Amino acid sequence: MSLSRKLLAEGLGTALLLAVVIGSGVMAERLSGGNVAIALLANTLATVGGLYILIEVFGPVSGAHFNPAVSAVMAWRGELPLASLLPYVAVQLFGAMLGAWLAHAMFDMSLLQFSTKLRSGTGQWVAECVATFGLLLVILRAPPTRVAAMVAAYIGAAYWFTASTSFANPAAVFGRMFSDSFAGIAPASAPGFVAAEFVGTALAVAVHQLLSAPAKARHV
Amino acid sequence: MSLSRKLLAEGLGTALLLAVVIGSGVMAERLSGGNVAIALLANTLATVGGLYILIEVFGPVSGAHFNPAVSAVMAWRGELPLASLLPYVAVQLFGAMLGAWLAHAMFDMSLLQFSTKLRSGTGQWVAECVATFGLLLVILRAPPTRVAAMVAAYIGAAYWFTASTSFANPAAVFGRMFSDSFAGIAPASAPGFVAAEFVGTALAVAVHQLLSAPAKARHV
Amino acid sequence: MSLSRKLLAEGLGTALLLAVVIGSGVMAERLSGGNVAIALLANTLATVGGLYILIEVFGPVSGAHFNPAVSAVMAWRGELPLASLLPYVAVQLFGAMLGAWLAHAMFDMSLLQFSTKLRSGTGQWVAECVATFGLLLVILRAPPTRVAAMVAAYIGAAYWFTASTSFANPAAVFGRMFSDSFAGIAPASAPGFVAAEFVGTALAVAVHQLLSAPAKARHV
Amino acid sequence: MSLSRKLLAEGLGTALLLAVVIGSGVMAERLSGGNVAIALLANTLATVGGLYILIEVFGPVSGAHFNPAVSAVMAWRGELPLASLLPYVAVQLFGAMLGAWLAHAMFDMSLLQFSTKLRSGTGQWVAECVATFGLLLVILRAPPTRVAAMVAAYIGAAYWFTASTSFANPAAVFGRMFSDSFAGIAPASAPGFVAAEFVGTALAVAVHQLLSAPAKARHV
Repeated sequence: MSLSRKLLAEGLGTALLLAVVIGSGVMAERLSGGNVAIALLANTLATVGGLYILIEVFGPVSGAHFNPAVSAVMAWRGELPLASLLPYVAVQLFGAMLGAWLAHAMFDMSLLQFSTKLRSGTGQWVAECVATFGLLLVILRAPPTRVAAMVAAYIGAAYWFTASTSFANPAAVFGRMFSDSFAGIAPASAPGFVAAEFVGTALAVAVHQLLSAPAKARHV
Repeated sequence: MSLSRKLLAEGLGTALLLAVVIGSGVMAERLSGGNVAIALLANTLATVGGLYILIEVFGPVSGAHFNPAVSAVMAWRGELPLASLLPYVAVQLFGAMLGAWLAHAMFDMSLLQFSTKLRSGTGQWVAECVATFGLLLVILRAPPTRVAAMVAAYIGAAYWFTASTSFANPAAVFGRMFSDSFAGIAPASAPGFVAAEFVGTALAVAVHQLLSAPAKARHV
Repeated sequence: MSLSRKLLAEGLGTALLLAVVIGSGVMAERLSGGNVAIALLANTLATVGGLYILIEVFGPVSGAHFNPAVSAVMAWRGELPLASLLPYVAVQLFGAMLGAWLAHAMFDMSLLQFSTKLRSGTGQWVAECVATFGLLLVILRAPPTRVAAMVAAYIGAAYWFTASTSFANPAAVFGRMFSDSFAGIAPASAPGFVAAEFVGTALAVAVHQLLSAPAKARHV
Repeated sequence: MSLSRKLLAEGLGTALLLAVVIGSGVMAERLSGGNVAIALLANTLATVGGLYILIEVFGPVSGAHFNPAVSAVMAWRGELPLASLLPYVAVQLFGAMLGAWLAHAMFDMSLLQFSTKLRSGTGQWVAECVATFGLLLVILRAPPTRVAAMVAAYIGAAYWFTASTSFANPAAVFGRMFSDSFAGIAPASAPGFVAAEFVGTALAVAVHQLLSAPAKARHV
């Protein structure tokens, strides 16, 4: 089958996802008159709606990962050919950056910029680990017909219940580095977030297997 | 089959859509005490709910386009008889104007008025192009049983992530010209929006075909 | 079949619906610090969620009308035995009053009270007519498996796009008369609302028939 | 079948549920600048999304009770082996406490703390009884494929229409005792809430049976 079509879907989908996350953050910050809770509410609702339709639209073409952690797990499970993993991750990262630029173009901001918002500390890292753990558990266990709604609902909750507002996606971290706005993250804070995300991913895979273990495996 | 019933459905549906968009904008502006983010949140939720039920209710009769760009694409794909295109667009425009008047009647405003809200500039036009691109891509690729929910979710996101708050519909532009309120657009700004919407429409058709191309078409 | 079970379902469902509408209005007003838009947003979301589950829970037992206008249309269509119409309406009105009292009990308010909030004028009546027209059109045309979600989504939109915040239900008018709170309506304003609701109901039935007319009926 | 997997699912699910409820409460309180309505709106949306995905994810493994009142009813109906009831309740309580601690870890708060928020009085107890009555009625009567969406929608409404913001779950009461934050409840107030919840549970079982009674039982 056509890898180039899959890569177009992954790249375009990730770009639009970041445009939704960053663009709605800019709009929300501009309109909310300094009330951060209202800004995050708007940012949340836009992300939920956008994520839902992006997964539904691009899922049948590429699986709609938009996320290197998801692609890595799918490759490990044999659902993504190993040879596709690197191209998938490359277009996700590139798409994420383009998505930030698209948001900036729409809001008359300079295209190239870097976030100065530091996000670090134990709480943030625990939060990012929990956020990614939950996202991967949802993806691994959701029935295929409901995965789009479930991922969207999960991220909507995770924007609020995790202290990091749930990036849960190394490509999102990468793209948000390029935006000095509400949704941004300073490049210096990126490695900590990405590391926490991979710990959360590994935890999700382990718990998923525990929950799926055949009866005879539970002798201990 | 009965064209007049389809035109009734398109006209009434577009009128109610504009009444929802403009009416909820008026209500939100009146109640929000100047907090534009809260007003847009309410405007968004009302539009999402209204769009969802209007597509479900009128879809089986007329296809529930409510949008000349959608009707044009459907005619081009052969899903709308070419002879129906002009009548469809005519009742959409007429319905949109009536919807504005219905909103005004409910809120004790003078029926005939024109917006003075200028909406223009590169950012707005890029945004309106992106907004319409996304809407058409959703419509072209959504499974029929989910199209109503997906269009509603998409527009809910696009109210926030596009700088133009996503008109994405020449009939909506036309109807909103007739309302000097939260959701209005000055007639002078209308041509730019409509042009951007048609660029977005063409882009969506092109990307839809790229994503659907048979494997042998990808030699390049 | 058992009429008494149906009446229990209609009465309890209408009571809970009014408890949701009035109770969430009280909570929202108390917490919102005078921002009416935030209060109505919360009132809207609670009503949407409550209506959705009440229709799903009681629909299989009684049809989940909770609304004399709906029961009247169902009787006229032969879907409710004519002999059940009066008992249905009686338990709906009684349940609505009990629901107001239940809300008051939960919020430590005196049980018996009457609203002093005047709601009248042409705009309000046009709005109430439009609100009920839309509700009945949704009910008459929704696929049975989606009617709960569609009615809930519609009312969520109608709280905002109609100037009356969409009572759309004579039993709701009756119950809200008994609450001098956010969601109340002064008894003096009730007759105008109910009259507008019946005009909207008749309009919905007429439009429903136009949209469903067989092809040979469209010679004119 | 494997009880240990079920207990893992119940414990982890209840922990995540409490982390969602408490964590989003902390985030909302920190960001809302003192507007309690906005804080509760955010808390509500996070809980709705979280509850929905937790029931979908863990339902196929353990039934996704996360609630001793639900487990008790399921045991009484024969849907949960009586021997599993105590272990279920134990992991729910333990998980709830862990969930509070997880929320505290994410938000850099001291892990061990106790709420000082008193919640008592007739109104609160009536509210908690109504809240649990509604939750159990939804669970007892929902079609299995919709129970996750319905429980989430119900709790979203009940956060607002009940004066107690609807704990409706003895394990949630237990877990929230361990958090001196927005969602907390002082240990002294816990017994009243739990008692009210069991009254509501019993009422729901009784009404469920009335609504399901065979025709010949309605002679009276």
